[in-house]
Amino acid sequence: MLKLSSIYAPINEGLKGVEDEFKLVSESRKQSFPEMAEMLDYILVGGKVLRPALSMLSAMCFGTGIKKVLPLATSSEMLHIATLVHDDAIDKADTRRSRRTVNSVWGLEKAILLGDFLFAHAAEVAAETDNMRIVTLFAQTLQIIASGELKQAYASFNPDQSYENYLERISGKTAALFVMATKGGAILADASPSDEEIMRSYGYNLGLSFQIVDDILDFVGNAKDMGKPVGSDLNNGTVTLPALLLMDRYPENNPIKDMLGATDRSAHVARAVEMINSSDIIDLSYKEAKRYADLACQDLSKLPKTAARESLYQLAEFIVERKN
Amino acid sequence: MLKLSSIYAPINEGLKGVEDEFKLVSESRKQSFPEMAEMLDYILVGGKVLRPALSMLSAMCFGTGIKKVLPLATSSEMLHIATLVHDDAIDKADTRRSRRTVNSVWGLEKAILLGDFLFAHAAEVAAETDNMRIVTLFAQTLQIIASGELKQAYASFNPDQSYENYLERISGKTAALFVMATKGGAILADASPSDEEIMRSYGYNLGLSFQIVDDILDFVGNAKDMGKPVGSDLNNGTVTLPALLLMDRYPENNPIKDMLGATDRSAHVARAVEMINSSDIIDLSYKEAKRYADLACQDLSKLPKTAARESLYQLAEFIVERKN
Repeated sequence: MLKLSSIYAPINEGLKGVEDEFKLVSESRKQSFPEMAEMLDYILVGGKVLRPALSMLSAMCFGTGIKKVLPLATSSEMLHIATLVHDDAIDKADTRRSRRTVNSVWGLEKAILLGDFLFAHAAEVAAETDNMRIVTLFAQTLQIIASGELKQAYASFNPDQSYENYLERISGKTAALFVMATKGGAILADASPSDEEIMRSYGYNLGLSFQIVDDILDFVGNAKDMGKPVGSDLNNGTVTLPALLLMDRYPENNPIKDMLGATDRSAHVARAVEMINSSDIIDLSYKEAKRYADLACQDLSKLPKTAARESLYQLAEFIVERKN
Repeated sequence: MLKLSSIYAPINEGLKGVEDEFKLVSESRKQSFPEMAEMLDYILVGGKVLRPALSMLSAMCFGTGIKKVLPLATSSEMLHIATLVHDDAIDKADTRRSRRTVNSVWGLEKAILLGDFLFAHAAEVAAETDNMRIVTLFAQTLQIIASGELKQAYASFNPDQSYENYLERISGKTAALFVMATKGGAILADASPSDEEIMRSYGYNLGLSFQIVDDILDFVGNAKDMGKPVGSDLNNGTVTLPALLLMDRYPENNPIKDMLGATDRSAHVARAVEMINSSDIIDLSYKEAKRYADLACQDLSKLPKTAARESLYQLAEFIVERKN
C-alpha cells in the first residue's frame, strides 16, 4: 500500500514551510494574548495536509516552485481547519482525530470565535499570493462550504434524499476546497485555461472520492483508527452514500427511517451499521469512490510527465485505499 | 438635533446602491436554496448603515465618486452584520434592533453557518474593489474583531479590568471596522499617506466614541428604543465604562462585583443600573465619548472643505447625541 510520506517526497520542503507558517500565527500572540496562542498551538496541526499538498503538486506540474504556492497552501489548510472547528462546535462533537475538539476543551463560544479568526487569517494569507483570482476563489470556496453545510443542516433528519442531493452536499463540503487547492495552484503557475480545467476537474473528482471514502469509513472503520465513534454521521442525522443505498434497498422498512424519527437513535444506528456491513453496500460505495478517483485522473496524461504528476496519480489511489 | 437623513444627503444614491447589492445576494438563491434566501432577506437589512456611509464620505473627501467605493461600503456593512449574527448566537440573545435574532428564529447551528457565509461573501465583495490593500484590510479587520471578542470572552465575569482593557476591547469590537470603512475609502481614493492617516484616526476615534455611547445607552436607554433589555451587557458578564466607573468609586462593595460572582444576577444588575443612573457616572461617560468624537474631528480641518467633510463633522455630533 502507498504511503503518504513517499507520495509527498517532491514537496517535503513545502509542507515544512506550511508547518512553520502555522507556528508563526501562535508565536506572534504568545506575549499579547497567551490564552489564544494556546488555542492556536492546539489546533494549527496538520493532519494529512492534503490541501497544501494538492496546491503544491498542481503548481509543480507546470514547473512552478513551492515558494510561490506557499501562501495558497497555508491558506487552504487553515480554511479547512477553521471549517472543522465550526463543524465540531455545531455538532457538539467531543473528539476529532482522537483528540478533544476545541469546543469540548474551551466551550462553544470560544470555538466559534477562534473559527472566525482562522477564516480571516486564512483570507489574509490568501491575499499574500498578491493574486486577486486566488482571493476571489478563496472567498467563493468558503461561501460554497457554508451554503453546503447550511443545506445539510436543513436536510438533516430528512429521509427524502436523493443521490443528487448527496453529491451536491459533498461537493460543497469537500470538493470545493480541493478545487481551491488544485485550481489555485494552476492559477499561480499561470497555466493555460485548459490546464486549469484539468486541475479543477482533478480536485473536484478527487474531493468527491475522498468524501465518499470518509463516509464509508464512518461505517466500517473502528473508533480508534477514525478517532470518532462509528456511525456518527447517522447519529448526527446526516445521510451519506451507504445509508442512501440501504434505504434504496429496503424502501419500506429500514433502520435509517426508524432512526430519523426516533429520540433514542443508538439501537437503530447500530442496526444500520450492521446491515450495511453484512451486505455488498460497502463494495458498491467503494466502486463509486473508485469511479470518481479515475475521473479525477482522466486528463492528467495530457500534462508533462513529472514527479508531481506521478504523485497526483498516487494520491488518487491512496485516497481510495486509506483506512483512516 | 441632527438627523441621519440630512447628514446622509450627499450619499443617498450610494446607500441605495448598498441596499440593491444586498437584495441581489438573496435573489440569486431564491430558486436554488429558498430557505437560505429567506434567511438572507431577513438579515441583510441596513440599520444606521454607518460603515457604508463612512466609506463613501471618506472617499468623497478626496473627490472620488460613490461607484468606486460601493463594494467596500457593501462589504463593510455585510461584515458588520455577520459579526452581529455570531455575537447574538454566542450570547444566546433573543432580540436585536427590536427584531428576533437569527439564532432565535432558526437556531444556533444555522446562525453560525449563515454568519460564515456572510463573512465569505463580504470578502468576495471586498475583492471586487480589485485592490489588494482593501482585501488585506478586510481580512485584518475580521481578525482584530474575532480576537477582540475572544479576549472579551476570556475577560467576561472577571472583575479585575482596567480602563485600558476596556479601550482595547472596544477598539477591537467596533473601532477596527470603522477604520476599515474610513481608511478603506481613502485608499480607494488614492489619498496621500497623511490624508489616509487623518481618515484612519477619524474612524478609530469615532468608533471608540460610538461604542462608549452604545455602552451608556445599555444603562440609560429604555428597552423599547434599544430593542434589547436594559443592563444586558452586565447580564452577559461584559463590564463596560459605566460599570468600570462604578467599581472605581466603590472598590470594596458594589453590585457589579456581587453580580459577577452570583448565579442569579438580575437583582444585582438592577441595582447597578440604578446606582449608575442616580450618579454622575453617565455624565462622565458622555464626556469621554465626546472627547473621542472631538479627537476624531481634530484633523479634518486639513482636508478640503466639501459637503462630505461637513457630514463627517455632523456624524461625530450625531453619534454622541443619539438615543438608540
